Amino acid sequence: MISANSDKLVRSLHQKKYRIKNNKFILEGIRTIDCAINNATSFSFIIYTKRFSNQNPELISKINCKSTEIVSEMEMGKLSPSKSPSGILAIANMIDYGQFNNDSNVVFLDEISDPGNMGTIIRTAVWFGIYQIVLSPGCIDPYNPKVVRSAMGSHFSLGWIGEKEISSLNNYVLIGADQNSKNKQLDKLIDKWALVMGSESHGISKNTRLYLDQTIGITKIGAGESLNIGVAMGILLHKMTK
Amino acid sequence: MISANSDKLVRSLHQKKYRIKNNKFILEGIRTIDCAINNATSFSFIIYTKRFSNQNPELISKINCKSTEIVSEMEMGKLSPSKSPSGILAIANMIDYGQFNNDSNVVFLDEISDPGNMGTIIRTAVWFGIYQIVLSPGCIDPYNPKVVRSAMGSHFSLGWIGEKEISSLNNYVLIGADQNSKNKQLDKLIDKWALVMGSESHGISKNTRLYLDQTIGITKIGAGESLNIGVAMGILLHKMTK
Repeated sequence: MISANSDKLVRSLHQKKYRIKNNKFILEGIRTIDCAINNATSFSFIIYTKRFSNQNPELISKINCKSTEIVSEMEMGKLSPSKSPSGILAIANMIDYGQFNNDSNVVFLDEISDPGNMGTIIRTAVWFGIYQIVLSPGCIDPYNPKVVRSAMGSHFSLGWIGEKEISSLNNYVLIGADQNSKNKQLDKLIDKWALVMGSESHGISKNTRLYLDQTIGITKIGAGESLNIGVAMGILLHKMTK
Repeated sequence: MISANSDKLVRSLHQKKYRIKNNKFILEGIRTIDCAINNATSFSFIIYTKRFSNQNPELISKINCKSTEIVSEMEMGKLSPSKSPSGILAIANMIDYGQFNNDSNVVFLDEISDPGNMGTIIRTAVWFGIYQIVLSPGCIDPYNPKVVRSAMGSHFSLGWIGEKEISSLNNYVLIGADQNSKNKQLDKLIDKWALVMGSESHGISKNTRLYLDQTIGITKIGAGESLNIGVAMGILLHKMTK
């Protein structure tokens, strides 16, 4: 059994305000925690179930954290923010991303609210070498446990993520993802861009639209109203980075 | 309040065995139900909350179903399989997809278990004009309510979805999605293909690998172990269908 203090801390970190207050967040799942270990993350503590440790001896042997504890499945069920806990959960300090780098391409997210989508977006951006993600006000917290879980450890590869006004990206060519755009390719003369992705249900907001320099879209061959935002961004980044 | 029989039916349809037994499934969410209406779906019944009807008068006025009922938020919460109900829920007969068409390209899914991913895959395939999806044994049921919700109505655009042995696709060129593949483009001489997507955690299974004619991959520019399966399939279909 973990201490009452640790128990209280884990549960509090399900909520954004306590993540900020404690400067800590929850990591769950084998891939995320493996990534964190590979990135020499310093953990406050790690808990796992016996079943998990029997099934994943390799990961367990890699853990370099003074404070680890085996908990029962029931205890894990209570502490985990997930409906189907993976069997391992770690607490770490929030990542210090340092300064925003004005010289590299970025993705700008406009009121993205779904945690699974946010996680997929981070994972996909990093795959395509886009290491900075700028969030509008109203986006879901990137340290939300569901975001962290679906990002599969890509938080540790990110260069920077945080809130910033779109007006501050004034030295970027701002390219809005828009399914009605006639433009299907990136103009090769553009050397520094921000790809702007609108929200799942409302697209790019009115205010953000005012700052766009151009749009880019994906040809629809079959049917449907739209693509999932993570899928759409993946296709656009694939086109824009190759 | 809905009748005890309807109540029992809705709850039973959260489970696959009762969906099969009753030949019915649950539709939830404004976009999915709007799509169903546009496709002249015949509903058994539709329920919605007052709040939903006030906020979406257009959709409500489009409903052509004899059996509709307004339920309380609490009742909706109990009937909906979703943690955050959208406010509208419909029951419809399973879609009659008729015969598999041996002449058009397909996606083959190998033990895809995550409902959100399955929904995104259906939505993405249909966008790129791939209307047939072949499932290996062990895939999540495409009528699972979470799959239906994340597919955003694309079930109604599909031509065919169901289980089938990979060996039966013997008149297709079988192309496996493989992040280690050196092949990044589709050979233009191939006129009929099946894109094979492996499971989220284990990739393409050993048995399925035996049937592959070739592989195709996506260049990694940055970092990460893999892409989300829906994102990866979207990028591959974009390359293969243009």
